[in-house]
Amino acid sequence: MKDNPNSTPGLNRRQFVKTGSGLLAMSSFPVVPDLPARPAAPPVAGPIVEGFPPAQLVGRPAPEGLKPGLPTAERVGFAIVGLGSYATGYIMPNLANTKNAKLTALVSGNQEKRDTLAAAYGIGNDHLYDYDTFDTIADDEAVDVVYIITPNVFHRALVERAFAAGKHVLCEKPMAITEADCQAMIDAGNRAGRKLMIGYRAQFDPYNVKAIELIRDGRIGEPSTVVADHGHLLPLDVPKNQWRAKQEVAGGGSLYDIGIYNVNGARYLLGEEPTAVRAKYHRGSGNPEVTVEEEIEWQMYFPSGVIANCSSSYLTTNNKRIHVQGDKGELTLDPATNYYLRALHVTDRSQEHHRLEEIQIPESNQFVPMLEEMAACVREDREPKTPGAEGLRDVKIMEAIYRAAESGEEVSIG
Amino acid sequence: MKDNPNSTPGLNRRQFVKTGSGLLAMSSFPVVPDLPARPAAPPVAGPIVEGFPPAQLVGRPAPEGLKPGLPTAERVGFAIVGLGSYATGYIMPNLANTKNAKLTALVSGNQEKRDTLAAAYGIGNDHLYDYDTFDTIADDEAVDVVYIITPNVFHRALVERAFAAGKHVLCEKPMAITEADCQAMIDAGNRAGRKLMIGYRAQFDPYNVKAIELIRDGRIGEPSTVVADHGHLLPLDVPKNQWRAKQEVAGGGSLYDIGIYNVNGARYLLGEEPTAVRAKYHRGSGNPEVTVEEEIEWQMYFPSGVIANCSSSYLTTNNKRIHVQGDKGELTLDPATNYYLRALHVTDRSQEHHRLEEIQIPESNQFVPMLEEMAACVREDREPKTPGAEGLRDVKIMEAIYRAAESGEEVSIG
Amino acid sequence: MKDNPNSTPGLNRRQFVKTGSGLLAMSSFPVVPDLPARPAAPPVAGPIVEGFPPAQLVGRPAPEGLKPGLPTAERVGFAIVGLGSYATGYIMPNLANTKNAKLTALVSGNQEKRDTLAAAYGIGNDHLYDYDTFDTIADDEAVDVVYIITPNVFHRALVERAFAAGKHVLCEKPMAITEADCQAMIDAGNRAGRKLMIGYRAQFDPYNVKAIELIRDGRIGEPSTVVADHGHLLPLDVPKNQWRAKQEVAGGGSLYDIGIYNVNGARYLLGEEPTAVRAKYHRGSGNPEVTVEEEIEWQMYFPSGVIANCSSSYLTTNNKRIHVQGDKGELTLDPATNYYLRALHVTDRSQEHHRLEEIQIPESNQFVPMLEEMAACVREDREPKTPGAEGLRDVKIMEAIYRAAESGEEVSIG
Amino acid sequence: MKDNPNSTPGLNRRQFVKTGSGLLAMSSFPVVPDLPARPAAPPVAGPIVEGFPPAQLVGRPAPEGLKPGLPTAERVGFAIVGLGSYATGYIMPNLANTKNAKLTALVSGNQEKRDTLAAAYGIGNDHLYDYDTFDTIADDEAVDVVYIITPNVFHRALVERAFAAGKHVLCEKPMAITEADCQAMIDAGNRAGRKLMIGYRAQFDPYNVKAIELIRDGRIGEPSTVVADHGHLLPLDVPKNQWRAKQEVAGGGSLYDIGIYNVNGARYLLGEEPTAVRAKYHRGSGNPEVTVEEEIEWQMYFPSGVIANCSSSYLTTNNKRIHVQGDKGELTLDPATNYYLRALHVTDRSQEHHRLEEIQIPESNQFVPMLEEMAACVREDREPKTPGAEGLRDVKIMEAIYRAAESGEEVSIG
Repeated sequence: MKDNPNSTPGLNRRQFVKTGSGLLAMSSFPVVPDLPARPAAPPVAGPIVEGFPPAQLVGRPAPEGLKPGLPTAERVGFAIVGLGSYATGYIMPNLANTKNAKLTALVSGNQEKRDTLAAAYGIGNDHLYDYDTFDTIADDEAVDVVYIITPNVFHRALVERAFAAGKHVLCEKPMAITEADCQAMIDAGNRAGRKLMIGYRAQFDPYNVKAIELIRDGRIGEPSTVVADHGHLLPLDVPKNQWRAKQEVAGGGSLYDIGIYNVNGARYLLGEEPTAVRAKYHRGSGNPEVTVEEEIEWQMYFPSGVIANCSSSYLTTNNKRIHVQGDKGELTLDPATNYYLRALHVTDRSQEHHRLEEIQIPESNQFVPMLEEMAACVREDREPKTPGAEGLRDVKIMEAIYRAAESGEEVSIG
Repeated sequence: MKDNPNSTPGLNRRQFVKTGSGLLAMSSFPVVPDLPARPAAPPVAGPIVEGFPPAQLVGRPAPEGLKPGLPTAERVGFAIVGLGSYATGYIMPNLANTKNAKLTALVSGNQEKRDTLAAAYGIGNDHLYDYDTFDTIADDEAVDVVYIITPNVFHRALVERAFAAGKHVLCEKPMAITEADCQAMIDAGNRAGRKLMIGYRAQFDPYNVKAIELIRDGRIGEPSTVVADHGHLLPLDVPKNQWRAKQEVAGGGSLYDIGIYNVNGARYLLGEEPTAVRAKYHRGSGNPEVTVEEEIEWQMYFPSGVIANCSSSYLTTNNKRIHVQGDKGELTLDPATNYYLRALHVTDRSQEHHRLEEIQIPESNQFVPMLEEMAACVREDREPKTPGAEGLRDVKIMEAIYRAAESGEEVSIG
Repeated sequence: MKDNPNSTPGLNRRQFVKTGSGLLAMSSFPVVPDLPARPAAPPVAGPIVEGFPPAQLVGRPAPEGLKPGLPTAERVGFAIVGLGSYATGYIMPNLANTKNAKLTALVSGNQEKRDTLAAAYGIGNDHLYDYDTFDTIADDEAVDVVYIITPNVFHRALVERAFAAGKHVLCEKPMAITEADCQAMIDAGNRAGRKLMIGYRAQFDPYNVKAIELIRDGRIGEPSTVVADHGHLLPLDVPKNQWRAKQEVAGGGSLYDIGIYNVNGARYLLGEEPTAVRAKYHRGSGNPEVTVEEEIEWQMYFPSGVIANCSSSYLTTNNKRIHVQGDKGELTLDPATNYYLRALHVTDRSQEHHRLEEIQIPESNQFVPMLEEMAACVREDREPKTPGAEGLRDVKIMEAIYRAAESGEEVSIG
Repeated sequence: MKDNPNSTPGLNRRQFVKTGSGLLAMSSFPVVPDLPARPAAPPVAGPIVEGFPPAQLVGRPAPEGLKPGLPTAERVGFAIVGLGSYATGYIMPNLANTKNAKLTALVSGNQEKRDTLAAAYGIGNDHLYDYDTFDTIADDEAVDVVYIITPNVFHRALVERAFAAGKHVLCEKPMAITEADCQAMIDAGNRAGRKLMIGYRAQFDPYNVKAIELIRDGRIGEPSTVVADHGHLLPLDVPKNQWRAKQEVAGGGSLYDIGIYNVNGARYLLGEEPTAVRAKYHRGSGNPEVTVEEEIEWQMYFPSGVIANCSSSYLTTNNKRIHVQGDKGELTLDPATNYYLRALHVTDRSQEHHRLEEIQIPESNQFVPMLEEMAACVREDREPKTPGAEGLRDVKIMEAIYRAAESGEEVSIG
């Protein structure tokens, strides 16, 4: 041990570093810094700032990036319409994490559920509505934005009623059942002079945003193929699934529910619009309770020559993948559109080396930036990033996909 | 096309399935279900429940697992003491996501920061304190729990003052600078008849909880080796790092800051207590501003024969890995203790096959269950899962590690 | 240190364990086994077996699984026809790794290349042929099997000439340009009473074999969707790519070259035959040197209702993925069909947990078992696992895909 | 379909592109290239080069990178001494894959095993030896290099005898039991004027070579910590394990067998030499058949201040990991030293993004380049990359580790 005095037993940290200056002459190993003795606990009695350097407990500014939001009173107030699992499990908790929005009203046909949630979130009775009293929300000054999270078929009427009440609207996707309905909703917003945003959370997801950025930056070269698949099972004993199985309420099946992520995803990742589609329904489970298509596969053709090979299914486990192949590499979001768990890989493979890069974004949340966008549009009087026209575009494409599946022919999109 | 009538162009979904019953006789391919025509939009005027089956918009119960929490008024009130980046970035936003806790008071030596946060979170002026007025929190009935998130050296005094004020206490780890301080804090809680919990978030993290469960279930057989490393850089131009560099405020260096995850992690993953340690400081950056140890490596010896090889460092990038090797396989948490991003792998490798299993827990959050535990202990009058004794144990082991590093000898832990 | 005698300095391994029996009374830590002193080196002079226990250097049997192959003289002799990069880079080196096959002859139109390889592999002059002298291989008793690795269009004639010479044949895929050619080749083999095997290496690949086994075992439940994509760039300045760009030599484009992996892969993974296809060409690079289709996407419809969404491309980087989605999970081979690097994942995802299992097969080689199969069929006089009928089936499907792409209609497969 | 003439049914590929020049006026979608009709099969009779452009079947040069090796007669001849699983499973098959080496002789104490292998590899009787006749290999002109793959304790004597026979030597690691033996072996080689190389296959492994390159290129910044662990089970009913359990034959336990990969790996990854070590044995299985240490943990201290925390174990499943932590990122080889399956990750993690890059090297083989190095040193009369001095260095360090474990003290390395 003689040859390494740094670790000589018996010397404490302070002592041994005092025996030499800088690196000890005989040592091949750097010394530890000059460590003071461990401090005694500060006195119990009396204000702690007296006994200790006040700098530590006083002066530090709020950390960068962790600035608190607007004072509660100044935040944009949201009414939630439809209190299903998405609203209560994802939107309402995340409203609390925004800096500029707040929950101020609830609308539901189920009074008991609504009242329980109101108590939990501290919403007063005068901000609770059902579908009979909904129109009186016009007089509720705490509500700036109405967020529609009901089954698809009700979107149009509720959006029109919200605009009639003078509120801004955030509406879940798919925007509506038909192109005509979508257009009517856009027109209603324009007439009312209010904002209309569609709840495309993936476009606010840091993973998807990063994927767009990487493709634009040329990381995979010129895109040539998109492969996009979304699927999940639809067990009908789970209440939240039941309306999705009904054509008259959902307005469409797996395509409208989750296939829309393939449609929207291919569009924002490529940055161009498909001009034609082909499609085919395929097997069903044979369950007579299900009156929508359970599986559909389709292709979308883009002006650049890119083709997107897509499928959506209610007969597979959770599968949410979007893959873009280019002439310099690949980009894969898998899962692409989960609520919390996404993965982004960028790959380039040569004969010599394969380079697989995973990009992780530690604190990614897509709900908060989506809600912030709506709040910002209201506060700044500007168009949302995902306006009604974006929702209309997808419905138009999906209507073309249905027509293609029914006709067996390629269908152009105007 | 003749041979597959299912896709005959010109028939729509309804028509072609009507041309036969069930599966079409000539087809090798299943037909799609009987899809009704796409519904028209519901009428704009009038309550929507009139025009459509009320079942969809009315009767659904609150989704299982998404039950709302306690009414706001009944929740356990938390005062946050110390408004640094961890408090403002992680604890305060997550309080809003609990079902049984709420934020009711703020304590800071920086009045401006405190007031801004109070406005953002809607905390009234009569619930704001500084370190001079902190003791008057005794009269604040909105406060049930005081959560101490200050630099380490202040923990003891603030905990004692909180107990003196009759509050329950949640205190960040490391619990205190010395074993004696820890014991004093436990005693103060006992005298006051109040709960004392230490903020070991990892023990509430679904990933770490799952890892414990897998090891207990024998997935990796008999553990033989733990390798645990935690490191991050400590640039001193970032305000939140500054106190950590000072022995008189932090009370210890990388070991107290992040090495504690190795100590605590090895203990809860193995389910046993180390009986001896060896340790060695190593190089420092030479930065005279840093008066704590920047790097230390140590070994912990467990009664079962397991050895844990550990290191902590302020001179490496983010590295937070705990690995347990057994005689049937391996379990790796890497990162083990990030705020949001963790990964859990269980591996078994034979000459023939390697089986690498990754377990992902989609909506895992460790802050909420930690805060819920504190709230539950108050409401149910029971001991926390991570009480003062747990914090004391780690400090005792870390003090032994420092003694071992100073003496160069193996140090037993009583 | 007093309290842990195990590590008392000064005692050696032998000594300290002698101070107690079993675990030392005072120790909480198990002792190391009774280690004998390190041996001295054995004497330099004289046979080593004298000075040391002969057991170690003598009696051990050959390790299980590492049994040597047949004596060289008894192995099945292979002639390689066509000395391109696949033959010289993969087949010839792997012949040396079989236990029952050997390289005995070379056939090439390039005399210099052939002679250089012959010298490297120790093939005598009387076993070297060009395409004029090829038919005299009939008299070469060292040749049992002729392995055809030429551009596609030459397969039929060379196979027929090989059969005419009385040899067994292993022929690269695609088996031939047309269904009629394939049938003629099968007929020629039958007439000659010789074996015909098609070189579907993936069916001998341990990763693909394992994937089949997992699907049959129900790991992903009932399959519903296959997504299969193969692509690579085709730079024409690389000699080995040039013939692939020419319709008159390749007989087809990306579909025949690599799309065939999608066709064959979907069939063996599902264990059923597609009954109809749809397809569409898409963009080309515009390079007039390329007279084959560069990109094609197609769908294959299976009797069970499974749909396979496929693409092949010469305009993307290396992409070789086959994915099967079931109602209990997913299985992904990505890359599926690389020469040496494959990856197999089996995934099941629920709302609560995602379980991603990667299966690695350390010493997987697909060339050796393919070559062994051909040798075994010759030695055991049995049909190959991948006979001519297998090659014909794929060509028939690919011809249907081309017809579907040209007609825009669904094409049934008889 | 009217609106997309490209896919009009009834037109074939050739026709529709002839209807316009370049892009069709009405189409938004690029056309496919001008595809000629599918070729007919070439004529069966007659040399195939007559009927088809000779360019395809004649003139192509040998593919770049796939150049054949030296003619068999000119290759460097290897005698294998010791025919255990490593020799027969890895070295002998890979000799066949080199371009400059060949297997020419076998040495074993087990005549039956030797003769069976000789038949399989076509080695004549006059090139077969046992340990009595080994010295007569001096007269065997087919042998240039003797590769010693016996239990450790025999290395020295066999190497000395091989040098006495005038042969070059490749010797497995660990080079010998003691530093003195290593030095004697080096001296013997120098006296004989023959090359001595130690079989450090990992230093020839493309993954480890790439890792070294990345660290030297600064990808992880300044290294601060190495964590290196190697372990595997040692079931004694497997013949190849038996000698490893015996101190008098193995000369050391898990450290000599696999811990050496930690020692050598840390050295080549860091590019510097450790100057001191500490170590500790820990639990044993208690199996009296095992007379070597089964588990040992140690630390190596490097002049730069880097510390390497290491362990080796016979009580864990396959674990072969080397991790280097720097101030800009991490590099992990896991598995680091498998025969065929390795993985290399380079990671950098910030608060904002984690970037995990996996580098895959498709056709990596470490045996071939190691054998090629030995052959090249003989042919070019130069020192091997891993000479005797490299083997001596590791034995010296491992002897220091054993002394440190026995003394409980830090041991310097001269």
